[in-house]
Amino acid sequence: MTLDSAGLQVLSRAECLALLASVPVGRIVFTDRALPAVQPVGFVLDGEDVVIRTTAGSRLAFAARNAVVAFEADEFDARMSTGWSVTMVGHARAVQDLAEIERLSLLPLTPWAPGAREQFIVMCPQEISGRRIHAETLLR
Amino acid sequence: MTLDSAGLQVLSRAECLALLASVPVGRIVFTDRALPAVQPVGFVLDGEDVVIRTTAGSRLAFAARNAVVAFEADEFDARMSTGWSVTMVGHARAVQDLAEIERLSLLPLTPWAPGAREQFIVMCPQEISGRRIHAETLLR
Repeated sequence: MTLDSAGLQVLSRAECLALLASVPVGRIVFTDRALPAVQPVGFVLDGEDVVIRTTAGSRLAFAARNAVVAFEADEFDARMSTGWSVTMVGHARAVQDLAEIERLSLLPLTPWAPGAREQFIVMCPQEISGRRIHAETLLR
Repeated sequence: MTLDSAGLQVLSRAECLALLASVPVGRIVFTDRALPAVQPVGFVLDGEDVVIRTTAGSRLAFAARNAVVAFEADEFDARMSTGWSVTMVGHARAVQDLAEIERLSLLPLTPWAPGAREQFIVMCPQEISGRRIHAETLLR
């Protein structure tokens, strides 16, 4: 088990992707008028790409249509003794190609919020990193 | 009930603060070498300020010592039909004053990750916003 300088277990790329695939909601991190912004989103993995749907014209659609963004998902237990977190950083783009929209529409991406969400955003990760906390690392 | 353009319930500042106080882990969003970055952190509220502890010299300590950051916490149920999210944006600073460190040390801030976490970071929110999803808004 590889530990980082803070004593957290470093997850492999495969472990990160498997954990991401196990949760329906993550958080996209972007820049909005030069300020850091974060928004929970339902997502699905398409290979290693993160696929989300948003409303055309939304703050997120505008900020993520051609930008470097971060994406994070995590799970922590109630007692906070175990958990994991995965973060990706990569280039996001708004999908315009009709054939690609048709293909992405078939993915099991259930919106967690109401509203028309006709704009697909795809983020291709250049960096994937993840950490796991074990109860035993807390006891060191 | 006030709904935003996406059909989500807009939470009051008081509701946002009460929800934040109900969870032990949030996510701090900052800029790291000009890229968006996000990291889960244990936190506690001190009035309206978010207080976290990190390792002196960490990436987070460096990025958040005198910068505008965002902070987010949320809860979604497993079926994704209900949930809430609160986001703050504000100025973060690394606490240097010994009397303030002593006072902050008394707060019920349990680290969720191992390691020495001797650096307090305090974020004073300039903006607080929150949304709640109800099952009924999904059924519209």
